[in-house]
Amino acid sequence: NTTRSNSANKSTSGKYLKELLPATNCLHPLHRKFTRLPHLAGTEQNLRYAEQIGKEWLEFGLDTVEMVPYDVLLSYPNKSQPNYISIVDQFGSEVFNTSLAEPVPEGYEDVSNIVPPYSAFSAKGQPEGDLVYVNYGRTEDFSQLEKDMGINVTGKIVIIRYGKIFRGNKVTNAMLAGAKGVILFSDPADYCAVGVQSYPHGWNLPGGGAQRGNIFNMNGAGDPLTPGYPAKEYTYRSNLENVVGLPNIPVHPIGYNDLAISCQKDFLSLFVAVSFSPKVRMNIHTNNQVTRIHNVIGRIRGALEPDRYVILGGHRDAWVFGGIDPMSGAAVVHEIVRTFGLLLRKGWRPRRTIIFASWDAEEFGLQGSTEWAEDNAKMLQERAVGYVNADSAIEGMYTLRVDCTPSLHTLVYDLTKQIASPEEGEEGVSLYESWHKRDNWTNDRDAPRISKLGSGSDFEAYFIRLGIAAARARYTKNKRYSSYPVYHSVYETFELVDKFYDPTFKRLRAVAQVRAGLIFQLAESQLLPLDVNQYADSLGKYAQSIVQLAQRHPQEMTKYEVSFDALFSAVGNFSVAARDFHERLQTLNREEHVIFAPSSHNKYAGESFPGIYDALFDIKNSADTAKAWEEVKHQISIAAFTVHAAGMTLTPPA
Amino acid sequence: NTTRSNSANKSTSGKYLKELLPATNCLHPLHRKFTRLPHLAGTEQNLRYAEQIGKEWLEFGLDTVEMVPYDVLLSYPNKSQPNYISIVDQFGSEVFNTSLAEPVPEGYEDVSNIVPPYSAFSAKGQPEGDLVYVNYGRTEDFSQLEKDMGINVTGKIVIIRYGKIFRGNKVTNAMLAGAKGVILFSDPADYCAVGVQSYPHGWNLPGGGAQRGNIFNMNGAGDPLTPGYPAKEYTYRSNLENVVGLPNIPVHPIGYNDLAISCQKDFLSLFVAVSFSPKVRMNIHTNNQVTRIHNVIGRIRGALEPDRYVILGGHRDAWVFGGIDPMSGAAVVHEIVRTFGLLLRKGWRPRRTIIFASWDAEEFGLQGSTEWAEDNAKMLQERAVGYVNADSAIEGMYTLRVDCTPSLHTLVYDLTKQIASPEEGEEGVSLYESWHKRDNWTNDRDAPRISKLGSGSDFEAYFIRLGIAAARARYTKNKRYSSYPVYHSVYETFELVDKFYDPTFKRLRAVAQVRAGLIFQLAESQLLPLDVNQYADSLGKYAQSIVQLAQRHPQEMTKYEVSFDALFSAVGNFSVAARDFHERLQTLNREEHVIFAPSSHNKYAGESFPGIYDALFDIKNSADTAKAWEEVKHQISIAAFTVHAAGMTLTPPA
Repeated sequence: NTTRSNSANKSTSGKYLKELLPATNCLHPLHRKFTRLPHLAGTEQNLRYAEQIGKEWLEFGLDTVEMVPYDVLLSYPNKSQPNYISIVDQFGSEVFNTSLAEPVPEGYEDVSNIVPPYSAFSAKGQPEGDLVYVNYGRTEDFSQLEKDMGINVTGKIVIIRYGKIFRGNKVTNAMLAGAKGVILFSDPADYCAVGVQSYPHGWNLPGGGAQRGNIFNMNGAGDPLTPGYPAKEYTYRSNLENVVGLPNIPVHPIGYNDLAISCQKDFLSLFVAVSFSPKVRMNIHTNNQVTRIHNVIGRIRGALEPDRYVILGGHRDAWVFGGIDPMSGAAVVHEIVRTFGLLLRKGWRPRRTIIFASWDAEEFGLQGSTEWAEDNAKMLQERAVGYVNADSAIEGMYTLRVDCTPSLHTLVYDLTKQIASPEEGEEGVSLYESWHKRDNWTNDRDAPRISKLGSGSDFEAYFIRLGIAAARARYTKNKRYSSYPVYHSVYETFELVDKFYDPTFKRLRAVAQVRAGLIFQLAESQLLPLDVNQYADSLGKYAQSIVQLAQRHPQEMTKYEVSFDALFSAVGNFSVAARDFHERLQTLNREEHVIFAPSSHNKYAGESFPGIYDALFDIKNSADTAKAWEEVKHQISIAAFTVHAAGMTLTPPA
Repeated sequence: NTTRSNSANKSTSGKYLKELLPATNCLHPLHRKFTRLPHLAGTEQNLRYAEQIGKEWLEFGLDTVEMVPYDVLLSYPNKSQPNYISIVDQFGSEVFNTSLAEPVPEGYEDVSNIVPPYSAFSAKGQPEGDLVYVNYGRTEDFSQLEKDMGINVTGKIVIIRYGKIFRGNKVTNAMLAGAKGVILFSDPADYCAVGVQSYPHGWNLPGGGAQRGNIFNMNGAGDPLTPGYPAKEYTYRSNLENVVGLPNIPVHPIGYNDLAISCQKDFLSLFVAVSFSPKVRMNIHTNNQVTRIHNVIGRIRGALEPDRYVILGGHRDAWVFGGIDPMSGAAVVHEIVRTFGLLLRKGWRPRRTIIFASWDAEEFGLQGSTEWAEDNAKMLQERAVGYVNADSAIEGMYTLRVDCTPSLHTLVYDLTKQIASPEEGEEGVSLYESWHKRDNWTNDRDAPRISKLGSGSDFEAYFIRLGIAAARARYTKNKRYSSYPVYHSVYETFELVDKFYDPTFKRLRAVAQVRAGLIFQLAESQLLPLDVNQYADSLGKYAQSIVQLAQRHPQEMTKYEVSFDALFSAVGNFSVAARDFHERLQTLNREEHVIFAPSSHNKYAGESFPGIYDALFDIKNSADTAKAWEEVKHQISIAAFTVHAAGMTLTPPA
């Protein structure tokens, strides 16, 4: 069984881990190299980095490297009409305007193409109105405002502080509540740690800094115009009006200096300040634009199971320099590729195929990773055995943080026992011990906490949509701030990491070892190191936890005859099956329903390419001819992609 | 490649085919045995047949046999309030009523539980109004009536003749056009062949006979209340009002005697007769009812690849006796099981696992087969390699008819060359030659025609939804009547087959040999006998044919810039890949998205059992508490099923 397999591999993996990431590594210069220039998705500089990465991966020794382009919807400020927010007086004159840009950090004064803070995918517009403060903009905040305070935000501009939930959800909530504009800001209470100075003297957010970010809130991520299908040249694109999740109101982020509040000022004073503010006007001219992006995909062909894939993927695009997000992670990927290349030169070759991916346009909604997943869905669903995500490798200086599928818990624990702690004064202490000691989980578990995967980075399509076992690991902070303070600001620089977060680059190295070790074991273990018993255990816990949530409503449980018995019975059966499980599936999986279907006009009749057929059916009598033909084009595009994907599953692995 | 594999197996399969179905077989007594009593889905008698079949399959030598029950929505006439249609005079009195039942054929006078002709899933009601005749009730018929003749059917009762399309589509079209009731009838022009007498003197439909049938028109078939999930005891059921595809108007079928027209009378006279008819009233009291049904599932465990499944499935439930539909097919399944049992006793065992299925409630919308497919979707999608359908084995006396996936064409041709023609005076002639000679396909193909699979029988969920290679074969008629004349009437008896359709039972034997041969080869060939090159060829043809349909509109093609290039390019690539293809996929396919998902309230946060979580989220503030808790129950049911299905994929094959 899997436990046996893990033990058997322990000794060899220990040896290889040291070889994989020797103490003398290149993380420091690699991080320096890729953080000199802004490289926003869709820009020339981000393409240049892609080309450089691809070239170096080939030099490192990967078997193949390819650039995979997609044409996706991105969003940029209008260069000739900057975005800003004004306070207007009774005559409508703008008496105060927010900053147009962040003060550029020392050493970067001559850099061009720094995009000012903005909310990607904001609607254009110049709404004017009263301002209402809605705390974090959560469902419960809007509900409290309406019910407890009697304040209706319909037709108002709302101001919401960053944190707690995804900014896209804040905007959706504001739209649902009837707001006509959203101002997002970073509250010092959330973005300044006590006793820490603002950048460049410390790692707190300066008052002139603001958090960029996309506010696209689609269910499923990826290119807004081609949901479910890869954004290739031939792919049919939806009209913008039909896209669910794109906001229809202007949204803009500001720093706390613009709110005339200073670092460490508390929540109450802010609330009062904002409540008495005069009328505001938003001036937003951001444009949506279909833009070419580029993933870099490299491969090491597996020796024994070349048609099984293990994927290490992380994004390359950054809002500005990407000092933490994502280059602390991209440097790790680059270093792992370099080290695997060294192993290849020594004659090593993994059992399974390893795929390395440098994703593009993650910051605009996980676009590069999602489009590639959609492009290769059939193949990945059948052949991928694990996905390790490599976004930011560090977000704090405290200890390790791992989120993963329960089936990988055992592997993570085994692995971290073989990796050295990066902390000062912990020579001879394993990463596992160091992590366990710092872990503030209150339960009496005998292992440090591992969390469930959420979303917000490139693993989403692989884990949620394709169902592939997935993991992410990074160094984290002690307290849970909503994110690290300078997140998505111009102050995410090389120096931020080099001076504050990881001066020895040992923390990045430890994270690199975890990521590389996961990939190594998934690609190399004779039996896949997936622990179904652990999965069954976790399932049982999730079931317990959801039933507890329901049991807060005992009367309704009774009244509506709500029973969890069937769920627990299923979990029980799963646990039994997991215990007996020792054998992997072999499968032939061929879906033909885009090629064949009963006609929707006559269930008895079979049709080839039914989508196109139905779109053409009686088309001359259609009410809206233009629309009917748009649908024909749409269906052709779907059929073309489906046939393409079917062909890919027949192609021998590279 | 696959062609080699087929050749290699040719000689052994020839030998086995003779052993599989020797000239002396039991088709005649088996057919007699299972057509003595009516066995409508959900009735006591159909359960008895299921038990008998299961018992005999075990005696024949299958490794396991199980009864698999589901609780599905069926529909029956009200026994105390019969359905009928009246002509009413100006005072509202019923001056003529249609028959309440068909005259029972000789020899069956003492049989009880013959359900009268009705439209299953009809709405109840007693609409009264003018009658409008709408030919076959196709989209084009309604459109012609409205546009060319200026007749609006809103608020009218429409009378539609059976044939050309599925009766459920006729009803949907009538509902969309605003009709308040539908009368279905069998036009002698469609249900009486020239020069043939009515049953019992020939195989034409008597004037007192009428076609039963369900009019449920859901996309996807199966139990109306549990779409996508198996109708187990614990499964959440939709409210009837939310079910798409159930008609909301009364529908009823009548024979042509009730229209005062006789066999062979032509279309014009009928049209005139109906157009001048007075007001009619429908009296429909049919009830929908959740009812237990039973599939019988038998298995022969594969010797070398026990986790690959080949399925032979056909339904057992009949509207009355099921002389043709389905017992001509069910007898074939029974005989195949018996013969495989004999082989097992000689020490033979197939390479792969063979599953035999006696489905229930096919007549109510493919319910037994669809529920089992939904129940085992995960496993089947990963492990099933082929599905052979066994509905009616004969619908005419002319020649073979095969509908299947293109990848099976080569196998069907190879196989039929090794089976003897059942026709008189064709000793030494193969079924292939006999079929080819009679085939009236106009193309200059060097092989008899094989059609695409449509829907209307139990292969639907397996082929369309799960994407499994599938085939059906039966003996058919020369001309394409809409169906055989006595279809779904009480006149489908043992005698109908024994006297008219297949007095020697040689045609049924030939069909049994085709079905058994397909199963045998799919289960036994070392390489799966699936021909991807043939698939690629067919794809090319489908693409050609769809482009021709579009090209009927050359101006619009240009105006809206419609291009098929991407499709043809994909088909081209597929063909190249198919040519190079020589290796089967190995797969690990695990979907976890019902267990994990980002919270819909905060995209960043991961939730276990997100469906239940979201349903419980803020539930005390929900507007409609009862509805919100219904949703919680619904989500529990989904989670329970998903975990159950995941457990099944881990369970070693039986």
